[in-house]
Amino acid sequence: MNEAATSRSIGVCYYPEQWPQNTWEPDAARMAELGISVVRVGEFAWSQLEPARGDFRFDWLERSIDILAAAGHSVVMCTPTTAPPKWLVDEMPDMLPVGADGRQRQFGSRRHYCFSHQGYRRECARITRALAEKFGSHQAVTTWQTDNEYGCHETTLSYSTAARDGFRQWLAARYGTVEELNERWGNRFWSMEYPSFDAVELPHNPVAQFSPIHVLDFRRYSSDQVVAFNRIQVDILRELSPGRDIVHNFMGRILSFDHFDVGGDLDISSWDAYPLGKLIDRTRSTQERQRRFMRAGEPDFQAFHHDLYRATSKGRWWIMEQQPGPVNWAPFNPAPRDGMVRLWGLEAFAHGAETVSYFRWRQARHAQEQMHAGLMRPDGVEAPAADEVRELKSAIDALGWQPTTKADVAIIFDYPSQWAWEIQPHGTDFDYFDLNFTIYRALRGLGLSVDIVSSRDPDLAGRKLAVVAGLFCWNEALVDALRDFDGQVLIGPRSGSKTQDFAIPEAMPPDLPEDLLDITVTRVESIRGDCPIPVEGGGSFRTWHEFVEVGEKANITAKTADGNPAVVSQANVSYWCGWPDEELRDRLINQAANEAGIATHTLPDGVRLRRCGDHLFVFNYADEEFDLGDLLPDAEPILGETMLKPSGVTVFNIKP
Amino acid sequence: MNEAATSRSIGVCYYPEQWPQNTWEPDAARMAELGISVVRVGEFAWSQLEPARGDFRFDWLERSIDILAAAGHSVVMCTPTTAPPKWLVDEMPDMLPVGADGRQRQFGSRRHYCFSHQGYRRECARITRALAEKFGSHQAVTTWQTDNEYGCHETTLSYSTAARDGFRQWLAARYGTVEELNERWGNRFWSMEYPSFDAVELPHNPVAQFSPIHVLDFRRYSSDQVVAFNRIQVDILRELSPGRDIVHNFMGRILSFDHFDVGGDLDISSWDAYPLGKLIDRTRSTQERQRRFMRAGEPDFQAFHHDLYRATSKGRWWIMEQQPGPVNWAPFNPAPRDGMVRLWGLEAFAHGAETVSYFRWRQARHAQEQMHAGLMRPDGVEAPAADEVRELKSAIDALGWQPTTKADVAIIFDYPSQWAWEIQPHGTDFDYFDLNFTIYRALRGLGLSVDIVSSRDPDLAGRKLAVVAGLFCWNEALVDALRDFDGQVLIGPRSGSKTQDFAIPEAMPPDLPEDLLDITVTRVESIRGDCPIPVEGGGSFRTWHEFVEVGEKANITAKTADGNPAVVSQANVSYWCGWPDEELRDRLINQAANEAGIATHTLPDGVRLRRCGDHLFVFNYADEEFDLGDLLPDAEPILGETMLKPSGVTVFNIKP
Amino acid sequence: MNEAATSRSIGVCYYPEQWPQNTWEPDAARMAELGISVVRVGEFAWSQLEPARGDFRFDWLERSIDILAAAGHSVVMCTPTTAPPKWLVDEMPDMLPVGADGRQRQFGSRRHYCFSHQGYRRECARITRALAEKFGSHQAVTTWQTDNEYGCHETTLSYSTAARDGFRQWLAARYGTVEELNERWGNRFWSMEYPSFDAVELPHNPVAQFSPIHVLDFRRYSSDQVVAFNRIQVDILRELSPGRDIVHNFMGRILSFDHFDVGGDLDISSWDAYPLGKLIDRTRSTQERQRRFMRAGEPDFQAFHHDLYRATSKGRWWIMEQQPGPVNWAPFNPAPRDGMVRLWGLEAFAHGAETVSYFRWRQARHAQEQMHAGLMRPDGVEAPAADEVRELKSAIDALGWQPTTKADVAIIFDYPSQWAWEIQPHGTDFDYFDLNFTIYRALRGLGLSVDIVSSRDPDLAGRKLAVVAGLFCWNEALVDALRDFDGQVLIGPRSGSKTQDFAIPEAMPPDLPEDLLDITVTRVESIRGDCPIPVEGGGSFRTWHEFVEVGEKANITAKTADGNPAVVSQANVSYWCGWPDEELRDRLINQAANEAGIATHTLPDGVRLRRCGDHLFVFNYADEEFDLGDLLPDAEPILGETMLKPSGVTVFNIKP
Repeated sequence: MNEAATSRSIGVCYYPEQWPQNTWEPDAARMAELGISVVRVGEFAWSQLEPARGDFRFDWLERSIDILAAAGHSVVMCTPTTAPPKWLVDEMPDMLPVGADGRQRQFGSRRHYCFSHQGYRRECARITRALAEKFGSHQAVTTWQTDNEYGCHETTLSYSTAARDGFRQWLAARYGTVEELNERWGNRFWSMEYPSFDAVELPHNPVAQFSPIHVLDFRRYSSDQVVAFNRIQVDILRELSPGRDIVHNFMGRILSFDHFDVGGDLDISSWDAYPLGKLIDRTRSTQERQRRFMRAGEPDFQAFHHDLYRATSKGRWWIMEQQPGPVNWAPFNPAPRDGMVRLWGLEAFAHGAETVSYFRWRQARHAQEQMHAGLMRPDGVEAPAADEVRELKSAIDALGWQPTTKADVAIIFDYPSQWAWEIQPHGTDFDYFDLNFTIYRALRGLGLSVDIVSSRDPDLAGRKLAVVAGLFCWNEALVDALRDFDGQVLIGPRSGSKTQDFAIPEAMPPDLPEDLLDITVTRVESIRGDCPIPVEGGGSFRTWHEFVEVGEKANITAKTADGNPAVVSQANVSYWCGWPDEELRDRLINQAANEAGIATHTLPDGVRLRRCGDHLFVFNYADEEFDLGDLLPDAEPILGETMLKPSGVTVFNIKP
Repeated sequence: MNEAATSRSIGVCYYPEQWPQNTWEPDAARMAELGISVVRVGEFAWSQLEPARGDFRFDWLERSIDILAAAGHSVVMCTPTTAPPKWLVDEMPDMLPVGADGRQRQFGSRRHYCFSHQGYRRECARITRALAEKFGSHQAVTTWQTDNEYGCHETTLSYSTAARDGFRQWLAARYGTVEELNERWGNRFWSMEYPSFDAVELPHNPVAQFSPIHVLDFRRYSSDQVVAFNRIQVDILRELSPGRDIVHNFMGRILSFDHFDVGGDLDISSWDAYPLGKLIDRTRSTQERQRRFMRAGEPDFQAFHHDLYRATSKGRWWIMEQQPGPVNWAPFNPAPRDGMVRLWGLEAFAHGAETVSYFRWRQARHAQEQMHAGLMRPDGVEAPAADEVRELKSAIDALGWQPTTKADVAIIFDYPSQWAWEIQPHGTDFDYFDLNFTIYRALRGLGLSVDIVSSRDPDLAGRKLAVVAGLFCWNEALVDALRDFDGQVLIGPRSGSKTQDFAIPEAMPPDLPEDLLDITVTRVESIRGDCPIPVEGGGSFRTWHEFVEVGEKANITAKTADGNPAVVSQANVSYWCGWPDEELRDRLINQAANEAGIATHTLPDGVRLRRCGDHLFVFNYADEEFDLGDLLPDAEPILGETMLKPSGVTVFNIKP
Repeated sequence: MNEAATSRSIGVCYYPEQWPQNTWEPDAARMAELGISVVRVGEFAWSQLEPARGDFRFDWLERSIDILAAAGHSVVMCTPTTAPPKWLVDEMPDMLPVGADGRQRQFGSRRHYCFSHQGYRRECARITRALAEKFGSHQAVTTWQTDNEYGCHETTLSYSTAARDGFRQWLAARYGTVEELNERWGNRFWSMEYPSFDAVELPHNPVAQFSPIHVLDFRRYSSDQVVAFNRIQVDILRELSPGRDIVHNFMGRILSFDHFDVGGDLDISSWDAYPLGKLIDRTRSTQERQRRFMRAGEPDFQAFHHDLYRATSKGRWWIMEQQPGPVNWAPFNPAPRDGMVRLWGLEAFAHGAETVSYFRWRQARHAQEQMHAGLMRPDGVEAPAADEVRELKSAIDALGWQPTTKADVAIIFDYPSQWAWEIQPHGTDFDYFDLNFTIYRALRGLGLSVDIVSSRDPDLAGRKLAVVAGLFCWNEALVDALRDFDGQVLIGPRSGSKTQDFAIPEAMPPDLPEDLLDITVTRVESIRGDCPIPVEGGGSFRTWHEFVEVGEKANITAKTADGNPAVVSQANVSYWCGWPDEELRDRLINQAANEAGIATHTLPDGVRLRRCGDHLFVFNYADEEFDLGDLLPDAEPILGETMLKPSGVTVFNIKP
C-alpha cells in the first residue's frame, strides 16, 4: 500500500482531435460539472500529431490540454504507439504482425505492429521522446499512459520474421548451447534435435503438435517482448518527464503476457472494465447465469481484476476505461441496468482504485466505435450514464477513504501456468484462470475480501489462508513462503506437476519436499463433464482427477466414493486430488476458512462484500433486493439502505 | 407492367454438347410433347465453342438450335463467360478470384474469375461478340442470357490485385481527394488517415475490425463491378442482336450485389428457384419448420423472390431454373412431395412469371451435378417431374391470364442496407433480409399480395400500406415518396440510423424531418434471444431495442412493460422501437392493415394466396388439407377443389 | 491362415535412447519378468542414429539389442523414416507436406514429409539400407517395422509441388491421352476440358466444388504413393534381411489409403489400438454411449479392426501398440477400468493376433507424449497396467491356442468406396465406414464371428452369409464371387451406383446383371435425421433412401409405409433400398442369419463373443455383470466365471 491510496477521483477518456475546437472549452467545463478531474488524451492520435515523417503538429494538443488545465483537470497523456499511421507502415511493411496462419495482419484498425520488430521499437522511442520533450514538464500532465491495451486482438503472439529472429536470440541467451536446449527440451523424442539455434522455427502449422516446451518458450519470449517494448517508453518518460506517474491500461482476462512483469515497470496498473458482453462469456458462466446478469455483469469478474491489478503494481491502480452504456463489440450489447454505472465505480474504489475513468466523453459518429456509448450522446446531449457519474461523485465525497484492507485470504496467481495449461490442457475444459476464478468466487461467496499475489513474490505475511491451484511449477520464493506461513494452505490439483522445462519432475508431482507434503501423484486423468467422480460427504471431482499415494507424514481427510484419496492433509497444508465441482469446492473452502479462523457470511447470488479500511461495502448485482439486516444485524449504513435494492450499494462503518 | 406479362410458357435448360447428336432430334420432340417451348443452350460451353484461342467451333451449336427451332422451340442463348476454359486461365492466371484468406481460388469448377479483371472482361467481350455475330440474327434466338448466377459461390467479393487497383480508382472517382475520403470516413479515429488513394488496402485480415465505411465502400465497389461486367455483354448484344430480350438468372437470397442495378440493364430478370434444401436454411426457419416443409420448401421464400425480381426489371420476369426433383448440393437432398413441381410452377405464373424453365432436361451421368435430377433420368426415361410439367401445361392452357395485380402493400427493399448490417450487425442475430422477410411472411399470412419496390425508385402510387424496415440510410426520392403517400406507413427499427458515409446522423436517428416523424433514437441495444423485452398488449421485442424520445408532434401508441415507447405514431406513420417477435409483429401488421382499409384473411400455416388479375390463386405447401369454404365461402373454383389437398392449387375467379 | 497363427506373445515399445544406459539391463530383465518377449526399438531415432549427414551412430542401438537379446527378447527393428531430422529437412525444405490450405506444414513433431517427394524417398532408402546392412543379420532382429502409422495426422494427402507433378504423371499413365481423361472425367461439363496433363491442378481451394472423379483420382494417386513409399523399404529389407518378417503399424479408422495394397507387401499387418478417447468419437456413438463406455472403449471398434487387419495380410497380424493407461491426445483422457488392459489383450488374441505389444515401456518425462501412460511410471515404478500384463501372460499360457476360426459371415470392405462417399456424401451423414461398422455391430450383437474380406479378393468359400453395403463400384472378381456363392447375400444401399470413372452407370444402379438382381434404382434422396421413412413391420430408413423399379425376376419382400419397395429379393440375394435404422437393421440381419442357417445369440449391450478354434471367448465391456448361464446353459468355463464381471473374460471349450 502507498501514500496515494486514499484519494478517489473520476476521469474520462477524451479525443479532442475528433471534434471541432469550439467544443473544447464547453466540454472541459461540463466534465468538471459532472465531477470529473482527470482527462486522458493523445491515444491513437499519431496521424494528427505527425501526419508525415518529421512533420510534428503538437499545437492542437497543447491547446487542448491548456484548456483542460484551465478548467482544473489533470491530464493523462498517452503515447500513440498503438496506432502507427499508414505512412509509417508503408515505410516498413514487415512491422505488421503475422498470425498463426502465416498471414500478415493488415493496416486499417489498431495494434497493427509486431512487438519484436526493432524498427518499430525505434519509431516508438522517437515519437515518445518527441512527446515527452514537448509535454514532459507541462503542469497539467501528471500521468503518462504507454500505448493502449497490450495484448488486445490477440497481438501478443506474432509469427513474423522479426519474431523468429528474436526467438532464436532469446533461446541462445537462455540455453547457451543448442546441445543444452536439445537436452532440456527432450529433443531426442521424435528426432527433434536441432543442429543450431538458427534451425529452430516458430511453433505454427505443425503436422502433429509441437513439443510443449517449444511452445511455452515461445510464450515466454513473446511475453518478454511486451515487457521490453513497454520499458523503452518508460525509460524515456522517466528521463524526460520526471515526477509523473506512468500507467498502462490492461484488460480483463488477457493472459497472454505476464502483467506482473509489465506492472513492475509502472507506477500504476490500470485496466479497462467492460462488465457486460464478452466479459461474461469469458467467465465461462452458464447461459442461465449470463442471462441473469446480462445488464449487470458477472459479480466477481470486476473484483477479481481489481484485486489482480492492485497486485501488479504493488497497490496503486486505476480503472482507465469504465463502461458507461452499451458497447459496440460484444455478441450482444445491452444497456446496463440503472445504477450499475455507479455501482461499478464504487466497487472499484472499495477495492482501492485511485481513479475511475470513463470511456469515453462523447460517443463518436464515425468509424469502428460509433456504437460505443459515451457520457455524452453523439449530438452532445447527456447520455444516461452522466447522472450516475454525478451520483458517484457525491458518494465518494460523502465517504472518508482509507487504504484498502489487506485481506486475510490470498490467491497465488501465475501467468506461465495459464500458458502451460493452454498448451497442454490434457482435458478440453481444463483452464487455469477458470480454476482460480471459481475458487475466488467461492471465497467471495463467503463474504471474504481476497488479495491476489504473485507466485514469484508471494506476500503471505499476516494472512490466514493461502490458496495455490493449478500451479505449473514451484519456485524457491514460493516454497519458502509456504514453509514460513502458519495459516491454512490449500493446494489445488496439478500444482507442481512440471519442471521449468515442462518435464515431469523426477520426484513426480506435486514436487514438494516431504516435510511440506508427503504425497506422490502417480497418475492423472481428464474426464467427461457428465462423468463426475463423487467424493464422500457430497460433491464430486470433474474435469480432472489424480491418483495419489500418501506418505507417512500425510493423512487422507476425504475419499472418493470408490475409496481413493480426495483430499490429503499434512499440518496446515491440504491438497485437492481433483477439480472440485461447486458443491465440493464450497464445502472445502468453507472448511478451510473455519480452520483458518476467518469469519464468513454466506451471501446470496449477486451480493458481494469488500472491506476498505473501516468501511464494509455491499454491492448488489442481482435483480432482486436483499435484506442486509439478516446478514449484518447490528450494523448501521453510512451510505445506502439496509434493504439493498438491485444495483444498490450500502456501506457500513465497522471496526476492524 | 408491360405488354408481355400475360403470356405463360414452359422452358427447359439443355446441354446438347453433353449428349450424342442422334439424341438431339428426339429430345426436341419430347420437349414439345411435354409442353415445353423455350430452350436455354450454350451456358458453360466455352471449351466446346473455342477449344483453343481463336479456334471457334459454332457449328454444333447452330445445328442444335436449328433442330430445336424446327420442333417449334424458341431459344435462350447464353454467353459462356461463367466458365472460362483452362487455356484461357493459363494465359492470365491472375484473373482467378482471391478469397478473403488471400488465396487464389482455383480452376476446376465454375465462376473462377474476378469481376475486376480487365483482361478477362476483354475476353468476355470477345466471345460475346463472336457469338452475337454468329447467332444474333438467328430466328430462333429470341433471348440472350448473360453469364450465369452472378454472385454464386461467394464470388462477388474478390481480394485480387485487380480488385485492389480498381477499388482505389473507384474511391478516387467517388471522393476526389484523399483528404475528402479521410474526412468522410472519419479516419482521424485510430490514426487511419491515408496519405493517398494508393495507400488504401482491401479490407481483409485486420488486427481488430475495419472501419464500417471502408468495408461498405468495398461492398459498393464490388457490386458496381458486377454491374459493369454485365453491361459489357449487354451493350454488345444490343448492338448485334437487336430486338432480342436480355436476361440474367439471379438466385435466392444472394444479396452481395444490387440486383436493381443489374436488373436495370436487362429486359427480363429471372431467378433460379430451388425450394428445397439450402434455401430452407436461408430463411432461418426453426428446425421444426424445416422438417415440416422438407419436401415443399418454405412457403414464402419463392414468393418473396418472385416479387423481388418482378421489381428489378420493372415487371418482366422468369424462372430460369426450376427444381424438378432432388438436387445435389444441399446438406440433405430429399425428393419433392408429389404435386410440388406443378405447384411451384403455377405459383410463379400467378406472381407474373412469363416463363418457367426447368433445370435440366436430362440428368447428367458425369461430374459435379450427376446427382441433380432432370426431367429425364440419366438413362433417358422420364423422371417423375415430367408428368407434373404436363399437368402444369394443361393448367396454364385452361386459365386465361392477365397481368399480375399491383398490390395494396409495398415493402421497400434496399441492398446496401443488407451490406451495412452484415458489416455492423451490432447484435449477432440482426439481419436485414430476415427482418424484411419475416414482415413479408406476416403480410402474406393475412392473405395479402405484396409488391417489393426499390428504395431508390419507390412506386407507392395507389397503394394502401408501405413498409420500410432496417433501412440503412434515407434518400431524397424515398422521403419524398413517403411524404406524398397517404396510405399507412410502417417504419421498422434501425431505419435512417446512418448517413451514406456510415456515420450517425448529426440529428440522430431516425433522421427524418420533424413533420414526418418527430422522434429521436437516443440509444440502442442488442439483446440475447432469451431476454425479450415485453410490450404491453402482448408480444415483445427481441434482437434489437431502441430508446426513443418522442417530440411534440408524435404520440406513443404502445409501450414496453417497463414504460418506454414501443410504437410511436404521427399521422399515417408508425415507428417500431425494436424488432418485434412473431406475436407482436402479427398484431402490429394486422392493425396497420386494418387502419389502411385492407381486407385480410388469416391463413393456416402453409396456405398462401396471390391475386393475378381476376384470379385468386391458393397454394398449399402443408401436409394437411384445408377447407377453403371457410376462407372464401362464396367463391367457386375455376381450377382445383374447395377442399385444398397437400400440394394442391385452387384458383377462384373474383371481381377486383 | 498360416503356420504362425497359434503362437501368442506379449511385446513392448521401447526407446532406449531416451534413458540412461545403466537402465537398459534392468529394463530388459523387468520386461521378461512381466512376460514380455518382443521389444520394438529404433522408431523415431534418426537424429540419434545419424546426427549429421553420413555420421552414423549405430553402436548404442547394437548395444541395446544385444542386452535385449541376452534377456531372451526378440527385436522388432523400425526404420526411423517417420521422423526425419532437422538437418535433412533443411537440405530440402520442399519435402515438407503441404495442407489443403496451401501452407507447408512445419518441422517440430513427426510425419513431416510428403509421400510424393522423390528426394525424401531416396533418403529413406539410404537410411533403411544402412540399418539393414548393420542389423539385417542380427540374431535378435526377427521383424522389421517400416516407418510408423502411415496416414496419421492427415498426412496421406499433400498438396505440394512434388504431389502435383506426380499426380500429372500418374494421370498420364492411367489415361494415356488427355482427350481420354477429358472424356472419362466428363469434362465438357462446365468447360473443364484440359489442354494437356500438365494443365491439371491438385484439387484444392475451388470456387464451387471439384468434379468428383478429379478428387477421387487424387485420392487413388495419394494412396498409391503410400504403397510405393512403403515398398521401397520392403524391397531393401527383403534383400538385406532375408527371413525376417516385415510389418507396419496401421491405425484405427484411418481410411485415407488402401490398407489391402500396403498389407499385400507385408508379412504381418499390425495396428495401434487405443480403445479410449478419440476412437469412441470415431464410431459416431451417441454421447450416452460414449459416457457408458468411457473407461472400456466401444465394444466393437477393436474387434472390427482386428478382423480388418487380419484380412490385409492374409491372416497374420499383431497389435503393435496397445493402450496401457490414460493417453495424452484425446479430448478427455480417462484411466481404463480395472481389467480392461487384460481384456483388450485377450480379445486381440482371440481374433488371432500373434503378438500384443504395449506402448510404451516407461512413460516419458519430456515432450509431446509425457502424459501418455506406459507400463512403468516416469519414475520407474510399475504403473497399474503392469500387473494386468502379468495376468494376461498367465491367461495365454493357460490356454491352448488354435488358429482363429474362419467365420460364417463375411463383410466385403472397399477403401475406394470410403473415398467416393467422402467426396460425394450427397447427404451430410452418409459415411461408408459407419454403414459397414453398424452392420458389423448388428452381426456381433447376434453373437457371430465375422471376417472382413477385400472387395478385390473376396474369399466367400464355405461361408453362409456375405454382406456388401455402400460399394462404390463393382469389379469382376466380386461379381463372379457373388454369382458362385450359395449362401445368403445382403446388398446395402448405394452399391454399384457408380462406374470406376465416378459416373452413373449407363444401365443405372445397382448395375448388376439381371440374373443376379433385376432392379433399377431410379432416384435417390438423402433425408434429415428427424424425418425417417417408416418400413412396414417396424423400423425405418434414415439418411438415405432409394426409389427402385423391380423387374420380373425380383420380388418385393418389404415395403415402406407409403408403399415403395424397401427390400427386394431375388434367389439368395436381398437388396436394401435405404439405410436402415437400428431396429430395421437388426431385424433384417437376424432374418438373413436365420435364412442362412446360422445360429445366433442375442447379446446384452457390451457383451461380445469370438470363436477361436475350439474356444469361445466372451468379453464384457459393460459396467454390469452378466450371467452366461442363460446364454450358454451347458457350457463349462475353462477360464473365468459363468457370472461374467465387468471387464471380465470367460472362455468356454466347444466342439466346432
